[in-house]
Amino acid sequence: MNTVPVWSVDARTGLRSAQVTVEAGVDDVDRAVRAARAALPALADRTARAALLRAAADRLEAHGAELIAAADRETGLGPVRLTGELARTKYQLRAFAEVVDEGAFLDVVVDHADPQAQPAPRPDLRRWKTPLGVVAVFAASNFPFAFSVPGGDTASALAAGCPVVAKAHPDHPQTSELAAAALREAARSVGLPADVLVLLHGRQAGADLVRHPLVSAAGFTGSIAGGRALYDLAATRPVPIPFHGELGSLNPVLVTERAAAARAEEIGTGLGGSFTLGMGQFCTKPGLVLVPDDESGDRLEKALVAAASGAAAGALLDGRMREAFLAGFAERAALPGVSVPVPAGEQPAPGQEQAVRPGFLSVPAGLLADEEHRPLLEECFGPVTVLARYRDQAQAEAVLAGLGGNLTATLHAEPGEPAAAGLLELLTGLAGRVLFGGWPTGVAVAPSMHHGGPYPATTSTGTSVGGTAIERWLRPVAYQGVPQQLLPPELRDGDTAGVPRRVDGVLRLP
Amino acid sequence: MNTVPVWSVDARTGLRSAQVTVEAGVDDVDRAVRAARAALPALADRTARAALLRAAADRLEAHGAELIAAADRETGLGPVRLTGELARTKYQLRAFAEVVDEGAFLDVVVDHADPQAQPAPRPDLRRWKTPLGVVAVFAASNFPFAFSVPGGDTASALAAGCPVVAKAHPDHPQTSELAAAALREAARSVGLPADVLVLLHGRQAGADLVRHPLVSAAGFTGSIAGGRALYDLAATRPVPIPFHGELGSLNPVLVTERAAAARAEEIGTGLGGSFTLGMGQFCTKPGLVLVPDDESGDRLEKALVAAASGAAAGALLDGRMREAFLAGFAERAALPGVSVPVPAGEQPAPGQEQAVRPGFLSVPAGLLADEEHRPLLEECFGPVTVLARYRDQAQAEAVLAGLGGNLTATLHAEPGEPAAAGLLELLTGLAGRVLFGGWPTGVAVAPSMHHGGPYPATTSTGTSVGGTAIERWLRPVAYQGVPQQLLPPELRDGDTAGVPRRVDGVLRLP
Repeated sequence: MNTVPVWSVDARTGLRSAQVTVEAGVDDVDRAVRAARAALPALADRTARAALLRAAADRLEAHGAELIAAADRETGLGPVRLTGELARTKYQLRAFAEVVDEGAFLDVVVDHADPQAQPAPRPDLRRWKTPLGVVAVFAASNFPFAFSVPGGDTASALAAGCPVVAKAHPDHPQTSELAAAALREAARSVGLPADVLVLLHGRQAGADLVRHPLVSAAGFTGSIAGGRALYDLAATRPVPIPFHGELGSLNPVLVTERAAAARAEEIGTGLGGSFTLGMGQFCTKPGLVLVPDDESGDRLEKALVAAASGAAAGALLDGRMREAFLAGFAERAALPGVSVPVPAGEQPAPGQEQAVRPGFLSVPAGLLADEEHRPLLEECFGPVTVLARYRDQAQAEAVLAGLGGNLTATLHAEPGEPAAAGLLELLTGLAGRVLFGGWPTGVAVAPSMHHGGPYPATTSTGTSVGGTAIERWLRPVAYQGVPQQLLPPELRDGDTAGVPRRVDGVLRLP
Repeated sequence: MNTVPVWSVDARTGLRSAQVTVEAGVDDVDRAVRAARAALPALADRTARAALLRAAADRLEAHGAELIAAADRETGLGPVRLTGELARTKYQLRAFAEVVDEGAFLDVVVDHADPQAQPAPRPDLRRWKTPLGVVAVFAASNFPFAFSVPGGDTASALAAGCPVVAKAHPDHPQTSELAAAALREAARSVGLPADVLVLLHGRQAGADLVRHPLVSAAGFTGSIAGGRALYDLAATRPVPIPFHGELGSLNPVLVTERAAAARAEEIGTGLGGSFTLGMGQFCTKPGLVLVPDDESGDRLEKALVAAASGAAAGALLDGRMREAFLAGFAERAALPGVSVPVPAGEQPAPGQEQAVRPGFLSVPAGLLADEEHRPLLEECFGPVTVLARYRDQAQAEAVLAGLGGNLTATLHAEPGEPAAAGLLELLTGLAGRVLFGGWPTGVAVAPSMHHGGPYPATTSTGTSVGGTAIERWLRPVAYQGVPQQLLPPELRDGDTAGVPRRVDGVLRLP
């Protein structure tokens, strides 16, 4: 019997506020997975799934005050941000209900039997997508709602028809319990088993979960170290499973000479807002900004000094992150050639004993080719960014060419600038979302969103935000020669289910 | 410098006919990958890709006689089968040209900026799919055209815009060289670099290939042992890559009591044709057939005896497979309770020194629960199948519940049989293609085909046959706030490229 306590900790003071539960032992994990697996058949009903997602949004709304209070205490992210995040989470659940209703995600393809077909007679064949099975969802530290228990992985998995076993993040166990209770209540309210979502706590429980034979896929948002360890477990199972992990991203930004000349102050101020948003704890935080080493670049840096110096101090999500942030900043600041226009540091206050203040570094881009300066090209979680001052575009491109995969890459260029097309192409190779102007920190919940990118940004080509996130939890099945009455309505002749279909080679809308 | 010779071997006699080349060393692999990578930008042109695929089909047609002669000598599959396979391969290339022309695979989603959007103002966002990069294609032994150098993996990768480095199968190096030459010639004929396809030989070269940093994905058709080893290499890279492997499949068939009563002879005879087709060297060969242990089942078995006894002897693809087949049959035949209605064995003849004759086994289904009888539930490549005689449906279902993943699962039931719906659901959990009647050996090239299934059938949810095979080689990219003139035509406002798109949430056909 496992008795390791799970504590709810006040992020601002670093003090334990309550014991929430105990960590799940290997038997608890097994029970949770079996319970979720038993709920799989009930989720086959598409109408029930849509109702579940809407009911889940409603329940989160009903319990909003309670959820936000718990999340604020456990994460220190503040009620304004958390109110917005909860609204986003509810919107996401309802958007997936619409995805389920529309049915395009089923990717229905019908080919009628054709004895004259080339190169050989063709049987009657009908394909659609079916749920993979139980999905393990690993909650993120930095979004207690939108990327946690009731977040995009859970919403898209339920939309796909997959029950979820969620592993709570230790930074917000109480919030996780409240959210899970709301989702389970929602399931019961629409006549589905509560076990369409089961919650677990504990690091070892997470490892046990990803290795459980009845778990069919996993979604993860977190660090490179933690994500890669779980990815490795998923890949080395006797039966490997898809592991959709979002691991880490530097989110490079390139400011061209002409953009800096035209908008130095605007860009510097905008960057200050972006890298300090949510205390720099966004996976899309711009962590490396290539800025020309000229007078315009100096003006940009000056504007950034003003913005960063004026940014509020605040707590990070937990003490371990706080230590890593302070150590990461100090390590980078100590590298040769690195200047510290605004130093990050501790800034405790009463009731805010854990607070830190944002800061940024500046370095000649030429130094980034040295192995010694490698840490500047690695993500440092928290409110810090690195300005890399480049001599000419070739030097900036050389830095970009040496980077790993990213969630986002941003270009600040002027309209009509001839180099823009080539630079966008270069950035496309680096990331899953490419911005022209603006800042990457906001991730719109929209059908066109792609929140993913080349490794280590994500471990697959899937997205965890936007309607296509549902694709990660499905597998195709083709039915050959099956009589009409044994086919699901979506695959029968005639437009019996009103979903988009490809019929005998031609796409058709209902 | 690597000097290990690569021999072309006559499958029927087992004798070397010519040295084709030498195995690729690690430097050769590096050169091949870099050459292919250099061809990536040229493949960005969708029109050129469609032209390439059609030209490839034309060149295979032009060199048909030569290709078929080489493949016949190297595989012993015979000119009739190989002529059909080449026709299928050409059809597949042309079908992918149509997929490229239509552009639905780009999954274009456009969301216009909306300052009023809920839950937050939305920027202009446009998503499509872009090629992953160089794809490694591992050719199969048993389909020297359709699942080898010019096969579905290559066709779908080129269609996606990905250059291919193909690793030839040692069973048909000469055929592979001829096919590669035809494809490279096709590329030149449409103004593309020949290096859109580069061919390599050698087992170690395959391992080096999947580990090469510039290889972005891999496709494989072969054995569980070989496929899992390469999957493991792909998954343990510093930057893991998608590995779409087709590894092995038992392809269970369930014949209900009523189906056996109604059609015992037809089913027995059909099974005999299916399991001996291509000398049983199909990944979709029915390897386990659940048949009632009653008088109807006896009639079915009797018809199968007649069909199997009358089936022609022939060579397997190579000597190693021949040994494995003979040993596998003998091992299974020696298990307690197993009867051998038609024994497989050697059957040499002049010019056919390697020939074997088909055979099958019969076992009470109840024995299959024993660990000792486990081999009967594992694929044995070659012309052998296992009849499992079941006492009642519950016993048959228990056998099915214990199986791993499969490419196909087949139900023979009578129209209107009440149990059919439940059995189809059970089989859906086991396989990527579920047949009602008929035999799984034929794999139609059609948009609705899914040729894949739960592990070990495949290592991913992708298919290697049918139009959706292209999805394996693409990754989404979203563009945010990018000016019209810098967007590809497919993403611009207005129907500039004529592809299906989802615009502001609504699917639209051109």
